[in-house]
Amino acid sequence: MTGPDSLSPVWWADGRLMLLDQTLLPTQEVVRAHERWEDVADAIRTLVVRGAPAIGVAAAFGVALAAGQSRATTFDGLLADLETAIKGLAATRPTAVNLFWALDRMKRVLLDARDLPLDRVGPRLLAEAQAIRDADIAANRAMGAHGAGLVPANARILTHCNAGALATAGYGTALGVIRAAHAQGKVALVWVDETRPVMQGSRLTAWECVREGIPHRLISDVAAASLMARGQVDLVVTGADRIAANGDTANKIGTYSLAVLARHHGVPFYVAAPFSTIDPALPSGAGIPIEERDGAEVRRVGATQTAPSESPVYNPAFDVTPADLIAAIVTERGVFRPPYRFG
Amino acid sequence: MTGPDSLSPVWWADGRLMLLDQTLLPTQEVVRAHERWEDVADAIRTLVVRGAPAIGVAAAFGVALAAGQSRATTFDGLLADLETAIKGLAATRPTAVNLFWALDRMKRVLLDARDLPLDRVGPRLLAEAQAIRDADIAANRAMGAHGAGLVPANARILTHCNAGALATAGYGTALGVIRAAHAQGKVALVWVDETRPVMQGSRLTAWECVREGIPHRLISDVAAASLMARGQVDLVVTGADRIAANGDTANKIGTYSLAVLARHHGVPFYVAAPFSTIDPALPSGAGIPIEERDGAEVRRVGATQTAPSESPVYNPAFDVTPADLIAAIVTERGVFRPPYRFG
Repeated sequence: MTGPDSLSPVWWADGRLMLLDQTLLPTQEVVRAHERWEDVADAIRTLVVRGAPAIGVAAAFGVALAAGQSRATTFDGLLADLETAIKGLAATRPTAVNLFWALDRMKRVLLDARDLPLDRVGPRLLAEAQAIRDADIAANRAMGAHGAGLVPANARILTHCNAGALATAGYGTALGVIRAAHAQGKVALVWVDETRPVMQGSRLTAWECVREGIPHRLISDVAAASLMARGQVDLVVTGADRIAANGDTANKIGTYSLAVLARHHGVPFYVAAPFSTIDPALPSGAGIPIEERDGAEVRRVGATQTAPSESPVYNPAFDVTPADLIAAIVTERGVFRPPYRFG
Repeated sequence: MTGPDSLSPVWWADGRLMLLDQTLLPTQEVVRAHERWEDVADAIRTLVVRGAPAIGVAAAFGVALAAGQSRATTFDGLLADLETAIKGLAATRPTAVNLFWALDRMKRVLLDARDLPLDRVGPRLLAEAQAIRDADIAANRAMGAHGAGLVPANARILTHCNAGALATAGYGTALGVIRAAHAQGKVALVWVDETRPVMQGSRLTAWECVREGIPHRLISDVAAASLMARGQVDLVVTGADRIAANGDTANKIGTYSLAVLARHHGVPFYVAAPFSTIDPALPSGAGIPIEERDGAEVRRVGATQTAPSESPVYNPAFDVTPADLIAAIVTERGVFRPPYRFG
């Protein structure tokens, strides 16, 4: 948490998982320590930590915490306890695949540790969670370098939600690309979509831009189209929560809307995400489960009620952008172009 | 204010202009009495009364109030006082043409009253404001009857902002079309766009739907595209703040976005507005001035700060939808189809 390069919402310290409480940004910077996997699951569910890569990292540390919590005296006892924890952590949010990817990876390490002395299993799991965290930051830096190549000089870049340092272990995916391009002096302006209903754009992306001196301007989501019509947007870049084998991409609600608008206006629309976001088991976006969240997120902001309490709400957290609207997908392994084949 | 048919945000009572304070909906229903034109101008500027037709009606009554305020003893003195009032009322908001239309109409009546006894001029102006109000409600009912013919059975209709009774003298324009179709049993569901930043959809349109038992479901603006992609929207209908001679239409920010999305998904996009919204002096939408409002509207909701105070904001209140994205424009004179000629 000191200096832009080390901005991270999720790290390990003194046997505890530290999370920057993202529900309180931009007005309060509060770090919470978590000692039990159940508390990590709550933090994921309540958006204390959010962003596909960040929740994968947090869940991995949650498994390490669960190993410390276990009173089991046999490997099979520990395995049973950790399977409960893994199931509980997996049940928090359905759409982002990085969560399941990280938990699968922890499970494999656990199973491979069957022949270790039992007191060595916990440290092995913690080391793996640390490796997942470190690899995420490294992937984001690589992604930034690849993605910056797509950014022209004096670019006005529109982004949606927060795919920044706060959504990852650090540096960010879409905002990592913007960071890298900014470091190269190519960013004239970042248009920050507010991103209703949870406002990750105004609360988090704008906060990161202020913190790092990236020139930006906040807009209501509904203003993006008229900016594009007036030639004020050179490219759009967003993160992703799950990418199907054909390139169809689930991301924060409103991403699909931007992709359609970008196509209409001839603006390139890019996705940046770690390779672990690609779900090879899903042939297309039609199979991606879309989380529906509580209507209260739309009916009120903070203490202010903005709709009648009687009004029913439809509050999907994500939408799916078909691959044919995506000009390129940036990963740490390079830039993929349609037709997408990640194999 | 008793019963759905008489829901109105603007009416005259006991020598005062009564306005339902729309900044407090949906949680409080407060009516404010206005005795001075300056207070009416403030009410328009601060969105106590909003909606193109409603601000036209309110401004007309503001001129009648100004006549009562004047101490002039000659017609020319009264004319000077009322010209000041008309100028002050016109300076409140730049985009909606109904404001200027109503003020022009009041000015013409004033000039025609030059030969009346001076104490008859005020009553003549008040009668004209009442006539503008009555004609608005009648126009909306006619518009509803015309527009309902565009609505298929079991329609799922998406609307943006509030173009309802609250935006007019009563009954509404876009929501008037929905009201009429609902009375005919044709409305399965109204998708209510929240409409950031001022949330006229969630605060006002949802409130009207609750009050009248119109089946509805509130969404964040960003969710509209994915509903369209899944075939959940049969048509879109919005109001208008100014329509150029070629059919280009200025309306609440986000309307253009919906029109592009509707075109992409093959969903018809309709506009409903009184004929007075058409500005024959403007050949195209390029000439429509777009009001930019304070960034604080985007940086906070009620008492909750949702963005860093350092973040610059771009907050246009309106956008312009080109005529070629509009399937039909519904007025009290009938349904116009492209290419638009209103002559």
